[in-house]
Amino acid sequence: MIRRGFQVMARLGHHRGLLGAPRVLPRLNPASAFGSSTDSPVSKLCSEKTDLKDYALPNASWCSDLLSLYQEFLEKTKSSGWVKLPSYKSNRDHMQGFKLPSGLEVSSGKGDWRILTRCIQVEGQGYEYVIFFHPPKKSVFLFQPGPYLEGPPGFAHGSLAVMMDEAFSKIAYLAGQGLLTQSLNIRFKNLIPVGSLVVMDIEVEKIEDQKLYMSCIAQSRDQKTVYAKSSGVFLQLQQEEGSSSQK
Amino acid sequence: MIRRGFQVMARLGHHRGLLGAPRVLPRLNPASAFGSSTDSPVSKLCSEKTDLKDYALPNASWCSDLLSLYQEFLEKTKSSGWVKLPSYKSNRDHMQGFKLPSGLEVSSGKGDWRILTRCIQVEGQGYEYVIFFHPPKKSVFLFQPGPYLEGPPGFAHGSLAVMMDEAFSKIAYLAGQGLLTQSLNIRFKNLIPVGSLVVMDIEVEKIEDQKLYMSCIAQSRDQKTVYAKSSGVFLQLQQEEGSSSQK
Repeated sequence: MIRRGFQVMARLGHHRGLLGAPRVLPRLNPASAFGSSTDSPVSKLCSEKTDLKDYALPNASWCSDLLSLYQEFLEKTKSSGWVKLPSYKSNRDHMQGFKLPSGLEVSSGKGDWRILTRCIQVEGQGYEYVIFFHPPKKSVFLFQPGPYLEGPPGFAHGSLAVMMDEAFSKIAYLAGQGLLTQSLNIRFKNLIPVGSLVVMDIEVEKIEDQKLYMSCIAQSRDQKTVYAKSSGVFLQLQQEEGSSSQK
Repeated sequence: MIRRGFQVMARLGHHRGLLGAPRVLPRLNPASAFGSSTDSPVSKLCSEKTDLKDYALPNASWCSDLLSLYQEFLEKTKSSGWVKLPSYKSNRDHMQGFKLPSGLEVSSGKGDWRILTRCIQVEGQGYEYVIFFHPPKKSVFLFQPGPYLEGPPGFAHGSLAVMMDEAFSKIAYLAGQGLLTQSLNIRFKNLIPVGSLVVMDIEVEKIEDQKLYMSCIAQSRDQKTVYAKSSGVFLQLQQEEGSSSQK
């Protein structure tokens, strides 16, 4: 299982002459991978003081359902162990301790890099979303797709695949140690009207043989319409302890 | 199988009070669904005369691999039965005969709608791609991800899920009759460096019980690095014969 799990990492060395040998990690203890502090998730995403813009804040484009559910979860952060995660334009700006396998490090160039889900900066036109995380393994994504994410006219279809990958990646990173997507399986049930709210419930099912197994259900707020269900498997990677921002 | 296949359509009626009954189609003859003309694919995507901008044309951001393979396939369109497909900003502008299930029609508003894969209009920053189709069931997507599609720093990860869904959707539409994604399964093998060329080979495996079964392999031009493999199942929908553009 471990050998197969790191097939991806082993193959990475072949690309573009990047010849660093993959690092095979010692087996992790799931208990230690799942921290219990509610502060640590945010500190894994960014240093305490940052002037980076947080895109996971309400703006004029948010529908009333998104706004009210955001407020509801914000209340829960005060007492129920939920954490609101900030969301920046690029992972380069803030990810703490994330380390790609040897040989795959990238230059810290100053170009205009964006993560896929923050590629559109016009409010309301693209991916409006906010993430709430409940350590050690539960998360809720609130997602409102805009008119730049159409598939069939009036409906935002493929953007859900993007959001599911982002959801799994982020939570695998927070719940485990680093991440690489190994597989993503989505079953679509209903089309999502552009501008409506999608509530995504994500759960880490188990951590086994350096893999995280996750599930997601995406549905309307009243849970009467299921948009899609998915599962994903992620590989754990080594992280640098106490590393500074990669910016 | 048919009843399960149209589960999605049946459920569509529940959303937002859209109460139209789903239309269950008669069983299609795969032979008739796979047309043999090389002209028909383009005519299904747009009327013969259009002043819409085709985004699937070379620009200054294209890497040399993308440019040369584009030229290679363009040569094949002259004699080998390949067709280059145009690519527009929105499906609203040009899709011929595409019809959503009853009750899901959308208004023909004049807002700024874009398909997900054309959401970024700055050359080279987002999804640069061109589609070649070989009726009845083979297709090649040439895809170059830009720096607005990052996942891990330096790599475009989730964008491949988007492109696979777009690839399957477009080819299911051309090879069959309409489309609705039912499932999408992706196994990731290697990370894709931003700015590199991904060659995606798509094939319609079979059409059965009003479903299209498709497969895709995404790899480097020299086929030495497999980025991902995927499969998808699509539902066929009724199309309007001889309908005009939905613009």
